[in-house]
Amino acid sequence: MRNVNKDNITEVFTGYFGEDTDPRAREILASLAKHLHAFAKEVNLTHEEWRQGLELAQWTGKITTDERNEFVLLSDVLGLSSLVDMLNSRPDATSSSVLGPFHVSNPPVLEIGGDLKGDYDGELLLVEGAVRDTNGRPVAGATIDIWQTAPNGLYSSQDPNQDIHSFHALMTTDAEGRYAFTTARPVSYTVPDDGPVGKILQAAGRHPWRPSHLHYIIKAKGFHTLVTEVFPDDDPYLDQDTVFGVRNDLVMTYTERRAEDFPKGFKLSGKVTEPFLSVKFDLVLAVAQIS
Amino acid sequence: MRNVNKDNITEVFTGYFGEDTDPRAREILASLAKHLHAFAKEVNLTHEEWRQGLELAQWTGKITTDERNEFVLLSDVLGLSSLVDMLNSRPDATSSSVLGPFHVSNPPVLEIGGDLKGDYDGELLLVEGAVRDTNGRPVAGATIDIWQTAPNGLYSSQDPNQDIHSFHALMTTDAEGRYAFTTARPVSYTVPDDGPVGKILQAAGRHPWRPSHLHYIIKAKGFHTLVTEVFPDDDPYLDQDTVFGVRNDLVMTYTERRAEDFPKGFKLSGKVTEPFLSVKFDLVLAVAQIS
Repeated sequence: MRNVNKDNITEVFTGYFGEDTDPRAREILASLAKHLHAFAKEVNLTHEEWRQGLELAQWTGKITTDERNEFVLLSDVLGLSSLVDMLNSRPDATSSSVLGPFHVSNPPVLEIGGDLKGDYDGELLLVEGAVRDTNGRPVAGATIDIWQTAPNGLYSSQDPNQDIHSFHALMTTDAEGRYAFTTARPVSYTVPDDGPVGKILQAAGRHPWRPSHLHYIIKAKGFHTLVTEVFPDDDPYLDQDTVFGVRNDLVMTYTERRAEDFPKGFKLSGKVTEPFLSVKFDLVLAVAQIS
Repeated sequence: MRNVNKDNITEVFTGYFGEDTDPRAREILASLAKHLHAFAKEVNLTHEEWRQGLELAQWTGKITTDERNEFVLLSDVLGLSSLVDMLNSRPDATSSSVLGPFHVSNPPVLEIGGDLKGDYDGELLLVEGAVRDTNGRPVAGATIDIWQTAPNGLYSSQDPNQDIHSFHALMTTDAEGRYAFTTARPVSYTVPDDGPVGKILQAAGRHPWRPSHLHYIIKAKGFHTLVTEVFPDDDPYLDQDTVFGVRNDLVMTYTERRAEDFPKGFKLSGKVTEPFLSVKFDLVLAVAQIS
């Protein structure tokens, strides 16, 4: 098209597509360009604003490392990650929620009843539950990849004083689908706000806080993999999670219990002498469609 | 909001905004999120596609250097750069067109009638014209920043065999607003397609070609700066510029003229013994609003 203008550019864009390519790729690119063009038109984007946007993108690229993926964080604070989670949630299964940028590879295996707290400060938290299918039948042999912040609000990959595998574990459910472990209660924390994402939050007048949570990835043969989180119902940031991760079915009560009620079968090294917290988080997996 | 869902997430996003921030920044972020969410919903984006998109973004960051800005190129091939140009074009002025990623700082000054071709191969092209205001009055003392590919299709920043300032010049218009220079005819070329942008073009079944052009940035006191390009009317890629830069008023005829008709007042070192090409490109600037 020799005379591209602001009214025909989206049509010109799709008119340049070839036909011998993946239709899904073309569908995604056409929709992306359409909405990108609609955005620029709606706000009447100036050259200076365009330049600032590209500078933010470049900065995002520069700050991204294997340990800190600022593009994931950008997707998180723009609500895109949560939206993709919700678009791909399975009916009747536990809601999915943001993966976040802090998952590590090859987490250490932890047996049922094992402990993640070790010598760390923080409140002792007992986490237990079961993995079931949408008909309530237990899913045995499901693997649960668990990770969380240390009591200082930092993930191991953010904190040189932690071992890279601290507060990371891989657990396998028993014949009744059960899992259980002890840990230090995770805390509310701020997403990294010293980079371009921080700049965006500042421009929007938004805080960088997330409510406290435990991350889970649950995999089981024949089921859709579930990436999710569990939140305590008394967290002050529950109603304004900066990455939009909270769903009603992921909010649980952390119950305070007496030291003498600490159950048997856990692998804590010392004796429990103070009150502890306890939460039950059951998970429902959806059967994968056979394609 | 404790129960974010795919129907309310855009509203939740803007609901998190603070009030003590720049309203324009909030307007841009709200519109960006709205259209980004609409895109993800329209295509029902999967986690795997989201992950692939983030990988492309990361790759774009990694490949970007001071000499190669892949984010600009991405904006170019998605039509965003051209759209921003068109949104900011001034009525009655020459159309603006893409800046592209190959402009260099501090181009060498070239006097009127100067030469850019030197010992390079390629067809000799005489370029001349005048800068005027929207009432047809000459704009004296306007600076024209000119750059183009060498006859091998590469800009100086892409080609270790060229001096960084080859085919770059800064010229100032005379009392009648005129400018003139000789150069080697620029050629059609491909945008860099060995990176993420190439991957996107491939996925869309699009070629990476741009029609031949000269780049101009024209600055003059009291006028809006104009970033534009001039294209020859016989280029095979005129109707499918991969960065959407062509506008009707930027397409000019390159006339073949006899060697003996080469005009006086040019600074070419040797005598013109073969036919040469000649193009006239007049530019109209819009008066800047006094704010």
